[in-house]
Amino acid sequence: MKIPSALSRLNEALRCLPGVGSKSAARMSLHLLQNDRAGALALAEALAHAAEHIVHCASCRNFTDNEICGICRDVRRDTALICVVETPSDLLSIEATGLYTGLYHVLLGHLSPLDGVGPNQLGLDLLEDRVKSGQVGEVILATSSTVEGEATAHYIAQQMKAMNITVSSLARGVPMGGELDYVDSSTLAHAFKGRRPLE
Amino acid sequence: MKIPSALSRLNEALRCLPGVGSKSAARMSLHLLQNDRAGALALAEALAHAAEHIVHCASCRNFTDNEICGICRDVRRDTALICVVETPSDLLSIEATGLYTGLYHVLLGHLSPLDGVGPNQLGLDLLEDRVKSGQVGEVILATSSTVEGEATAHYIAQQMKAMNITVSSLARGVPMGGELDYVDSSTLAHAFKGRRPLE
Repeated sequence: MKIPSALSRLNEALRCLPGVGSKSAARMSLHLLQNDRAGALALAEALAHAAEHIVHCASCRNFTDNEICGICRDVRRDTALICVVETPSDLLSIEATGLYTGLYHVLLGHLSPLDGVGPNQLGLDLLEDRVKSGQVGEVILATSSTVEGEATAHYIAQQMKAMNITVSSLARGVPMGGELDYVDSSTLAHAFKGRRPLE
Repeated sequence: MKIPSALSRLNEALRCLPGVGSKSAARMSLHLLQNDRAGALALAEALAHAAEHIVHCASCRNFTDNEICGICRDVRRDTALICVVETPSDLLSIEATGLYTGLYHVLLGHLSPLDGVGPNQLGLDLLEDRVKSGQVGEVILATSSTVEGEATAHYIAQQMKAMNITVSSLARGVPMGGELDYVDSSTLAHAFKGRRPLE
């Protein structure tokens, strides 16, 4: 056998990372063993620690190492606003704008009946309970602009309207720095419909 | 704090992988935590196991989990041939051709006096001992076709010639499937000089 078993096992394990195939895995393992064994050990420990300690927030389902996440615990956040996102990375993207001060609900996916993902898998019962508690004034739907994302948003909008809660969704339009030439017609149509008077 | 410390530590640790920046690291960690915790744990274990058990072969410096690697132990290999390569991945590339049946010497780098990499760091004393043992008939230099690789090859060639050992290097020429139009002039010049009579 030309490759030691510990090495081929590492190559195989590295392929659980998104975007890493057999070539990249081999490159990564050889790099770690040759130049950065301390890094490999640190990574091993960080992986085991995270897999064990990171759980979902009992309130908004974001990743946290406590029962309730830092955002839900932050008393400066506006509890009257809930922004619904599909994934924790969408949440981080919104946080990176520094503009939004309300709370979140993380769906951890989108409605997909064929894959067995229904309203309960998205924690919509949890969202309903939070809305029913009476503090929430508006739910902002920030799901992806895909067929599944839009369908999920539509479902949640119906649910919220039945409870007389204001529902809004992110504006669709021309992205910043986008040349009109390169913007697709559907986005342009949205931008036209959503045009705003200049002050 | 918006990101749990276990998560930011994992993001930081993932960046020891070659070609992984902060964006990829965040994508990897979120993917593992959301979809593949078993994979994350398996990877953690494989990393720790490899970093602990993979050592360098006492004879050729290839990676192995024994004292002597599988290639050096293989009695079917031709002990009269030693192929000198820079890295274990170069060795694997040559093994993949299935053509070479001799042994190897893995330099684990190339001569680079400014970085403190001299002949001893490349294990050339080890190579000299093996050659002096008397079984070796030819040393094949398969270092990279870069300035550092060529300089290293030149150094080793001088060392071997002083011991009256045949030294050869890989043929330089037009790669298989390469259109002449796209081959650089230096490679083409090598291909001309190394032209062979057709049988």
